[in-house]
Amino acid sequence: MLEHGGRIRQAAECYGIPLEECLDLSTGINPLGWPVPPLPPECWRLLPELDDGLEQAARSYYGCTDLLAMAGSQAAIQALPALRSPCRVGLLAPSYAEHALAWARGGHRVEMLAPAEIEVALERMDVVVLANPNNPTGTRFAPATLLAWHRRLAARGGWLVVDEAFMDATPEDSLAFHAGSEGLVVLRSLGKFFGLAGVRAGFVLAWPELLGQLNEALGPWTVAHPARWAAQRALRDQPWQAAERQRLARDSLRLAELLARHGLAPAGGTALFQWVATGRAPVIQEALAKQGIWLRRFAAPASLRFGLPGEEAEWQRLEQALRGLL
Amino acid sequence: MLEHGGRIRQAAECYGIPLEECLDLSTGINPLGWPVPPLPPECWRLLPELDDGLEQAARSYYGCTDLLAMAGSQAAIQALPALRSPCRVGLLAPSYAEHALAWARGGHRVEMLAPAEIEVALERMDVVVLANPNNPTGTRFAPATLLAWHRRLAARGGWLVVDEAFMDATPEDSLAFHAGSEGLVVLRSLGKFFGLAGVRAGFVLAWPELLGQLNEALGPWTVAHPARWAAQRALRDQPWQAAERQRLARDSLRLAELLARHGLAPAGGTALFQWVATGRAPVIQEALAKQGIWLRRFAAPASLRFGLPGEEAEWQRLEQALRGLL
Repeated sequence: MLEHGGRIRQAAECYGIPLEECLDLSTGINPLGWPVPPLPPECWRLLPELDDGLEQAARSYYGCTDLLAMAGSQAAIQALPALRSPCRVGLLAPSYAEHALAWARGGHRVEMLAPAEIEVALERMDVVVLANPNNPTGTRFAPATLLAWHRRLAARGGWLVVDEAFMDATPEDSLAFHAGSEGLVVLRSLGKFFGLAGVRAGFVLAWPELLGQLNEALGPWTVAHPARWAAQRALRDQPWQAAERQRLARDSLRLAELLARHGLAPAGGTALFQWVATGRAPVIQEALAKQGIWLRRFAAPASLRFGLPGEEAEWQRLEQALRGLL
Repeated sequence: MLEHGGRIRQAAECYGIPLEECLDLSTGINPLGWPVPPLPPECWRLLPELDDGLEQAARSYYGCTDLLAMAGSQAAIQALPALRSPCRVGLLAPSYAEHALAWARGGHRVEMLAPAEIEVALERMDVVVLANPNNPTGTRFAPATLLAWHRRLAARGGWLVVDEAFMDATPEDSLAFHAGSEGLVVLRSLGKFFGLAGVRAGFVLAWPELLGQLNEALGPWTVAHPARWAAQRALRDQPWQAAERQRLARDSLRLAELLARHGLAPAGGTALFQWVATGRAPVIQEALAKQGIWLRRFAAPASLRFGLPGEEAEWQRLEQALRGLL
């Protein structure tokens, strides 16, 4: 298993800090996510049904017809490699490491690619996997570029897999609208923007044949009833979404400026995190951890990912901790 | 996808009956399941963590050390066939049909076996899959018989897979205590006895190497945070469990007697359902459906599965409907 952010119990125990006093900035999950109303009891008791309206809500939110609900993008990441015989897979790096692990485990020949290498490497690849915007670097790919790559891959039976886990704040850059074309796989999740990482709900947007294969591979009831209930309502809540896009843009900028003021100007970011490339990453992570503030650190390149604080007191606490670093 | 009970929306639409007026007896889910308290907000927002105490609660409840939490037994059913190269698999029939589908889809040679055929067929099988007690027939296998079968299979690298989805009311018959031995796979679920089918939570009890392979195949965060939270508390609630075992035994007997009084003496059952083998199954299903009472019907042999009514009014309604049949 790979390491991930959000392992706050482990971190708290390691540093001897009570869990409730910890400030977890180690994930890209919205700290002020969609407020889930009290759950009707039947969500616990009854099997989830496919005609509950979730898929319609998702089609309307994403702007595409062909999709399949999954228990988070992770379920799709695990399942996709088994749907192709061994082939050459190029993966954006650094990026969300579960993709490369899954394709390698599936017996494929994987090659890690920097953003600037993809264009040329495309010729020798059967599958290209990237995140847009990328996590943790914040790198963005223009939709036109991605669509051109998709056409080139699809022309010889290849796939372009685009993980859009952090796309909800900028839907205009999504490829969701183009999903349904053979060879284009778009992964969406309710974990980050909606702040519903606990429920494990996401979607694969792809052409019907692939969705059918995924559906067969994963079987019935993959998304829990509470998850389907909450996800449907979050996807339909357009006023919340519109307000949240504005708030996250403001808060993300605030975080970038805060970090820059303390000598940690981000090298990239999204609405939900800022990414700081610095050789001091281990030292800074340790210093903040001792104060109960968890960051996610990456080794190559040496860097830190800062998630957004939520309440004003959390912003103040981060600022104070950063001041202590200088 | 196979047909299952619990598709009440579809049924209600088909018969033009408002959903809230329907009495769903088509599943084996406890109608008075464990009452889940209001969910803490972090269960929605935060990724589920493996050190939250669920596994300890499960070890204590099942009485075994080696287990892995899954998104319901179904997730294990889907994943197990990929962990063996193509082999000969004998499956109890009639039984829960997802097992046979998954093994056949995994490229194995499957053979359906009546209970009395297993003893002899064992010699030519690499894997034997059965449910104990069986669904829908209620057939029970003695632990000593199953352990002997396990020894014979394991001696040549084979597996015995026992689906104990309906075992919670009679834990003394479980093989959970023996789980950990190579070649024995026990599936448990919180869907039926605890009435938490919506959350998708279950466990595979098996030897460590197999659990490691399953864990790798399924990846992180397979069980949602709300599911882990509720499941842990349900598994620890011994007073509820003790009272529920008694109540279910009473209610199951009451259902059997009620059916017998109306010419439908069950051919078998468990604490959570009664199984009636009758050539009139299609007629009875249709007649009750018209009154908004859903049953699960099986074609071979022609039979009906009656889940337990919950509130007293539901018992009266079933009795009245059965009276109308005569």
